[in-house]
Amino acid sequence: MNLANVAQRLGITESRLQGLQETVIRESAWPEPRLLRFEKETSGIEVGTVVFENGEIVFGYPKIRRPLMLAAAIKRHFSEIVAVEEKMNGHNVRVLSINGEMVALTRGGFICPYSTEVARRMVPEDIFEKHPSLVLCGEMVGPENPYVAKDIYPTDSIDFYLFDITEKNCKSTFGVHRTHEMAEEFGLKATAFFGEFHKESAAQRIKQIVIKLGRQGREGVVMKDPDNKLAPLKYTSSKTNCSDLSVAFRYYNDYALDFFVSRAVREGFQSVEWNESAEERKARALSLGESILMPMVDTIERKLQGENIVQVVQIRVKSLQTARDFEYHLRRSGIRAIFESPQPDDDGYLVRITKLIMSTNDKTQALLDGEMW
Amino acid sequence: MNLANVAQRLGITESRLQGLQETVIRESAWPEPRLLRFEKETSGIEVGTVVFENGEIVFGYPKIRRPLMLAAAIKRHFSEIVAVEEKMNGHNVRVLSINGEMVALTRGGFICPYSTEVARRMVPEDIFEKHPSLVLCGEMVGPENPYVAKDIYPTDSIDFYLFDITEKNCKSTFGVHRTHEMAEEFGLKATAFFGEFHKESAAQRIKQIVIKLGRQGREGVVMKDPDNKLAPLKYTSSKTNCSDLSVAFRYYNDYALDFFVSRAVREGFQSVEWNESAEERKARALSLGESILMPMVDTIERKLQGENIVQVVQIRVKSLQTARDFEYHLRRSGIRAIFESPQPDDDGYLVRITKLIMSTNDKTQALLDGEMW
Repeated sequence: MNLANVAQRLGITESRLQGLQETVIRESAWPEPRLLRFEKETSGIEVGTVVFENGEIVFGYPKIRRPLMLAAAIKRHFSEIVAVEEKMNGHNVRVLSINGEMVALTRGGFICPYSTEVARRMVPEDIFEKHPSLVLCGEMVGPENPYVAKDIYPTDSIDFYLFDITEKNCKSTFGVHRTHEMAEEFGLKATAFFGEFHKESAAQRIKQIVIKLGRQGREGVVMKDPDNKLAPLKYTSSKTNCSDLSVAFRYYNDYALDFFVSRAVREGFQSVEWNESAEERKARALSLGESILMPMVDTIERKLQGENIVQVVQIRVKSLQTARDFEYHLRRSGIRAIFESPQPDDDGYLVRITKLIMSTNDKTQALLDGEMW
Repeated sequence: MNLANVAQRLGITESRLQGLQETVIRESAWPEPRLLRFEKETSGIEVGTVVFENGEIVFGYPKIRRPLMLAAAIKRHFSEIVAVEEKMNGHNVRVLSINGEMVALTRGGFICPYSTEVARRMVPEDIFEKHPSLVLCGEMVGPENPYVAKDIYPTDSIDFYLFDITEKNCKSTFGVHRTHEMAEEFGLKATAFFGEFHKESAAQRIKQIVIKLGRQGREGVVMKDPDNKLAPLKYTSSKTNCSDLSVAFRYYNDYALDFFVSRAVREGFQSVEWNESAEERKARALSLGESILMPMVDTIERKLQGENIVQVVQIRVKSLQTARDFEYHLRRSGIRAIFESPQPDDDGYLVRITKLIMSTNDKTQALLDGEMW
């Protein structure tokens, strides 16, 4: 690897790059090829940015910021027109070809063996034969997504939806229109495009879209500048905020504490911006309260009945090696999971995975035994 | 100050004491007398422990732990009988005499000028003339408590309720019975004593007490070993958990994040332990949700209407100097507050204090302006 060259393409000096190698840069030697990952955002380089051993760089997908007052933020942020796309609820991957092999990078910059197998099934190889430097940014969603299992999308397993495209060694992306054009050209699914709205009326239209998405259990929207000159923004449904809280409180001792506050505060601002009646506000308060209380009660009652607090997910793989590799990948990501024996199914295997929620499991047992909080 | 002597009474070595002086021990020179405060619990010495310049030590009142499953904890923790007292909602002070002057120490080990004036009004001086080494541990409560204003107690201003007694240079306390006897002897109010229960039936009785207290907006109970050989435990009403959340979400950007989770988790365990029906659980979820959503909505709407987010409290002082001193005390405690001109009232002064809630105020304005979370 030519450090001077890599540093130049990262937009930093060679000595800065060397300094970062001792702090925010981590090496990952598996699966091949070997790569360097940026564990934190630094010097304007996104978290999850990857430098492969051949010197090629794949920048992390920029974090999308969230307004709490939609109309005010749109007015302030966009120039005239707002393009609105669905924000899907799964895990974010970057699919690309390296040394002639397709791989899927996670948000953190690891090659995920399962996401890679899925990408190879979903994304035609010839895209990268014609365009070897493309990086397809998309969401993997569905009930067989082992990170975020959701059965609200039209798939029984897992699917890949393109939401942006970039190129190796390049920080900028193609933006909403070119992405949808290329998705069509390549025969890839893309996240739903809800239209372009003038900034004056966009908030009202987005409110209707978000309410409808919420009813379907879907997450929300990403707002983009049609000319791709401004950073996108995101906005989510109350249903999603509450659903996030449900997961968090089901595993109340395993999730980061700041998770809760942001979800709750979103509800407060949405209720004010949408100028809700006392009755609507009460209904929102009930949903909020239920999404906190009920999953926690369920967890405590399960433990009381002697169950272990676990999360069961399922993946479908073509190759047994993928399942074995994914087991190792989860372990290195700090997730403790038990993989059951793969069950042959169609031309592949179904693998049930039991994720252990150790901290909540043990804490709940201790509290039930009369220990102190 | 004889360091060797002080170290011995603290139960540590002299060199350890010297080491702590550079880390967890802070000096406070005002109001007189000069003292050293333990800012953190360390080497078995409670946070808030104070060493006066004459070498006398007042230990911090031990933190009372909280079970989430009441029956299991009582069974596990107590030996046979549980004495139950009210846990009052105000601020905890230690009242004592130093160099012949009565002072009130806050939890953190500061002399609070306002609490000191209140203590001098409430506590007969002759107690300390007869017993110069006593330390009266109590709660200051009422609507004119500038830290926690509550109008649920039988006072229009602020009152002092004894809950335990200790002595200078002594870590142990007198416990429930001796405290109530001495309160009667001294003519002091003490926190309500609800009785002694056998450990088998205590949880059921305490549940009834806590539900009743909750209906009155009161906080909960402290459970004590009648023989004072075991550490006390505390348990609070759902109403108090929700009321804490209300305050926290009214000032959502100023409060510590971990505050929320503990309150919510208490609700989950109480609902399970009390084996609530679906309907009761729904009512609890609604209270929980409303205590999060409604105060936040109120804050956002106030800001939208151009109000500043502040908290107005009121104190009543005999001496104008106390008000000035208390202003300085709040400032050194990191609280920004505006004191209005004292209004003469009876034989003293009323002072309205506007506490500025800067972070929530500014954050709410920024979010209303369309900034990102």
